[in-house]
Amino acid sequence: MSNGAGTSRDIRNPENVGFAGANPATKRSPVDTDPVNVVVIPDSFKGTLSASDVARAMSQGIAKAAASHDIAVNITEIPFADGGEGTLDAVLAAWGTDTHTCDSRDALGRPLASGYGISPDGSIGLVEAAQANGLAAVSDVPLRPREASTRGVGRIVHEVLERGVEELLLTVGGSATTDGGTGLLRELGARFLDEDGVEIPDGGGALTNLATIDFSGLEPAVWGVRWKIAVDVTNPLTGPRGAAHVFGPQKGADQNDVAILDAGLVNLARVVREAGGKEIGEIAGLGAAGGIAAILYAFFDVELIPGWELVSEALNARELVAQADLVLTGEGRFDSQSIDGKVIHGVRQLTPEHAPLVVIAGGVDLIPEDMERSGVTAAYSICPGPITLEEVAPRTAELVERMAYQVGRLRWA
Amino acid sequence: MSNGAGTSRDIRNPENVGFAGANPATKRSPVDTDPVNVVVIPDSFKGTLSASDVARAMSQGIAKAAASHDIAVNITEIPFADGGEGTLDAVLAAWGTDTHTCDSRDALGRPLASGYGISPDGSIGLVEAAQANGLAAVSDVPLRPREASTRGVGRIVHEVLERGVEELLLTVGGSATTDGGTGLLRELGARFLDEDGVEIPDGGGALTNLATIDFSGLEPAVWGVRWKIAVDVTNPLTGPRGAAHVFGPQKGADQNDVAILDAGLVNLARVVREAGGKEIGEIAGLGAAGGIAAILYAFFDVELIPGWELVSEALNARELVAQADLVLTGEGRFDSQSIDGKVIHGVRQLTPEHAPLVVIAGGVDLIPEDMERSGVTAAYSICPGPITLEEVAPRTAELVERMAYQVGRLRWA
Repeated sequence: MSNGAGTSRDIRNPENVGFAGANPATKRSPVDTDPVNVVVIPDSFKGTLSASDVARAMSQGIAKAAASHDIAVNITEIPFADGGEGTLDAVLAAWGTDTHTCDSRDALGRPLASGYGISPDGSIGLVEAAQANGLAAVSDVPLRPREASTRGVGRIVHEVLERGVEELLLTVGGSATTDGGTGLLRELGARFLDEDGVEIPDGGGALTNLATIDFSGLEPAVWGVRWKIAVDVTNPLTGPRGAAHVFGPQKGADQNDVAILDAGLVNLARVVREAGGKEIGEIAGLGAAGGIAAILYAFFDVELIPGWELVSEALNARELVAQADLVLTGEGRFDSQSIDGKVIHGVRQLTPEHAPLVVIAGGVDLIPEDMERSGVTAAYSICPGPITLEEVAPRTAELVERMAYQVGRLRWA
Repeated sequence: MSNGAGTSRDIRNPENVGFAGANPATKRSPVDTDPVNVVVIPDSFKGTLSASDVARAMSQGIAKAAASHDIAVNITEIPFADGGEGTLDAVLAAWGTDTHTCDSRDALGRPLASGYGISPDGSIGLVEAAQANGLAAVSDVPLRPREASTRGVGRIVHEVLERGVEELLLTVGGSATTDGGTGLLRELGARFLDEDGVEIPDGGGALTNLATIDFSGLEPAVWGVRWKIAVDVTNPLTGPRGAAHVFGPQKGADQNDVAILDAGLVNLARVVREAGGKEIGEIAGLGAAGGIAAILYAFFDVELIPGWELVSEALNARELVAQADLVLTGEGRFDSQSIDGKVIHGVRQLTPEHAPLVVIAGGVDLIPEDMERSGVTAAYSICPGPITLEEVAPRTAELVERMAYQVGRLRWA
């Protein structure tokens, strides 16, 4: 299953790192001093520019500023994401690997092609659950919340495990399912039985009849792999703030469905407990995606982590950013609502104390007090003056580059 | 006439300098190191915010950034101007003195109240010629380009000289006159005579009959004062690029008027030359404001300087900026058209080599190559995101403050 311990920290494709496709990661000026390490690690500007395009534009602006000051810089581009939309794209762009696809199933069991990623050295797999069990894939038919299943996610995971990864990164969210992850485990060989030892039907609606879980047929790889799962909410599995009550309705559940689904999840937590698994009913985050991570968390080597941290793991961002003298990040909009938001908050955690962290965003609206609370050194909008969203959108790459240039100009003057 | 040589460099009212009206020019943090000298020296944001309000906003933003970094700063606010519109306001705001007014005359001889300024120590007078001979004051009646006279400007100058200034700063431009400055000199005691020794009528139309100038009755102060005159164009007094041909039409001159006025100015230059005055026909800038500075330049202690330099003289800006570790300037819009523009270009000349010069503007639209050519270190728009001019205008002070804060945050991180 392992293709070599000790290589797992060297997962980025060097061909894809660095300045504008030139000598990777390094642009040296004639001055013979230690180069300044700059890391550009932006989110996408949603709907306008991908994270890798934003990173490229930042890199080019910084390189121009450094050249104008005769400063030697070492620029590392890390397209980033928060574990939500765009995560697979950002990670694959940084890895420099293609999307793998496999035959899967949507939440209602219909065939579907789903994408996933494998790190260049083969040690890490990245699965976006919504590629199979997402609401978008079943938007053409009436929702069936009690039958909806995560079997499709299990098919993707099955294929990723077959490739021998050591670490499996799973993002969840945007799901149409409330089955507690039973479908996923079924595709990996587990059996979910009623009191008579008969397999219960697919979907969360049948979980009230669950009596035992049979892991005897489970693929061994499920035990051996390190699971890191990014959940996008803090809700618990069961109860009034749980998966059924809070998210059931948006998956088509009426009041009766919600009651049945919640009772099923409560029963699942009981069965898990009695089988010696961890307590899962009250753990923050296990209510995400209809409880998809619950059984995994109870029995396997699972770490629940924030989305940005999952991406950081995938990209080895912590180690790369730790060496930075200057860090640039960015997103579509940076305001008081997004201080504790995902990418910028995450980059703040990764950035060493001594390195300024600069945000370049489409819009920046923060009073100084909020700026200081954010831990960000400075934040700039790319807008060059009064301008409409429609006017600025097609110029985003150019304007990100210009602002990165201004940041470097001021920083190194 | 002098109220004390050696005080002329100490002209600014300390009550009006410094941070937000508090302890003038100095805000010290608890850190016991030499404070960082920051000079904020912006133009007005035309139509939106006066230069002194912009300077105040910049000062507040810088102070907040310094406090956040525990940096001791010494902030000097210098509201600036380019010698055009807003010059008197900016200088008076910096001086902390009130506008003086005197009874004057418009270009057609009608009574008018005109403003002027006197520096706090009384050594410098500032006169805007257009306060008397401006086109705006005669917009209600048909223009009479041959009769229009600078006598009104002479009345203001007369009063300023009576106050005993050592230096007289005169801005010209926007005038309705083409009299070669004869009206101005007449009010100060000079006589302009024809071949029979009879005074010629007022206005440029009579200059073809000028034979001699009689300075015997001239106020002695006209000889003793140092004149510094900011002309806003580079046109010469006479000829096809001269005052009559280029600017006559906008003052109401038809083709015949232009010919007469140009012939008059040519004759004036001849009379001046024969009287031992300097050559005035071809000097760049003497075509400004209908030749208002021509006779002064020929016979008196006159220096023609750029508008920004006149303001710099008034505010002792050169000496104040020379001590800066960081300089912030700004204007409504900074783009490739305004690189060689007035205030920012001037501030660049004043800023010491080691100090970064940062522009904060309503709009910034420059490619990196033009940025470097401008000599400006970095330039930022105040716009916090996609926004209309109507939305940004009322928030200008707040947004200038925020951007100055971001500049200080990044600079001192």
